[in-house]
Amino acid sequence: MQTIFQKILDGEIPCHKVYENEHVLAFLDVAPLSKGHTLVIPKEQASFLHELSPESGAALGEALVKVANAVVKATGTSQYNILQNNGERAKQAVFHVHFHIIPKLTNQNGLSMEWNPQELVDAELLAQEIQDAL
Amino acid sequence: MQTIFQKILDGEIPCHKVYENEHVLAFLDVAPLSKGHTLVIPKEQASFLHELSPESGAALGEALVKVANAVVKATGTSQYNILQNNGERAKQAVFHVHFHIIPKLTNQNGLSMEWNPQELVDAELLAQEIQDAL
Repeated sequence: MQTIFQKILDGEIPCHKVYENEHVLAFLDVAPLSKGHTLVIPKEQASFLHELSPESGAALGEALVKVANAVVKATGTSQYNILQNNGERAKQAVFHVHFHIIPKLTNQNGLSMEWNPQELVDAELLAQEIQDAL
Repeated sequence: MQTIFQKILDGEIPCHKVYENEHVLAFLDVAPLSKGHTLVIPKEQASFLHELSPESGAALGEALVKVANAVVKATGTSQYNILQNNGERAKQAVFHVHFHIIPKLTNQNGLSMEWNPQELVDAELLAQEIQDAL
């Protein structure tokens, strides 16, 4: 099933485009958390970030810097969150990889988060397990 | 003033390293929101994402894909959030760019967010303003 973002990439649905190159497209979120809320997506089709090619990953990282800089200039604030959700439990709504650039113009708008840190346990073993999975 | 991440990069403070290359370092967050909470940082010194060089942006994007894939394998879940905060209002605590990879192992742990979308207004003008700032 085609996602809405694939339809935007295919030109079947319009978007408010702000940037495009060979690998990525950036456009305004139609349901913004704040003024300037922008999405940056790869042209490569993948549901989750970890499924992307290294080339798409690199292109997204470079585009995020470029588009974030433009959003900062256009909104006048250097306070913003970059967010990318994977899976329903992580609040992913469209199953095509997308990075949010969400300006935090006031304490009230933008992204609101709870931060409840835990103790780090078995760190050596865990770091080794992630290293082994690289 | 040196940040704690600069001290880690300089080898003055230890970390639980999971990945390193010419441009980036990845290590476990010492105050994790969930098991496997990992940070990916550029070696380039910059407080905010939009200040980074295109090279660091690309290296971060490529490393995020690679390290996220390893975190998925090591934790056994493909549900996770990527988060990068800029500015105090956006909950940035250390003023050296860092991306969080935060597994969402259960509905209770990991990143908790409120999502309060607004109406998109003056979209054409706003998209043009961001384009003009690129």
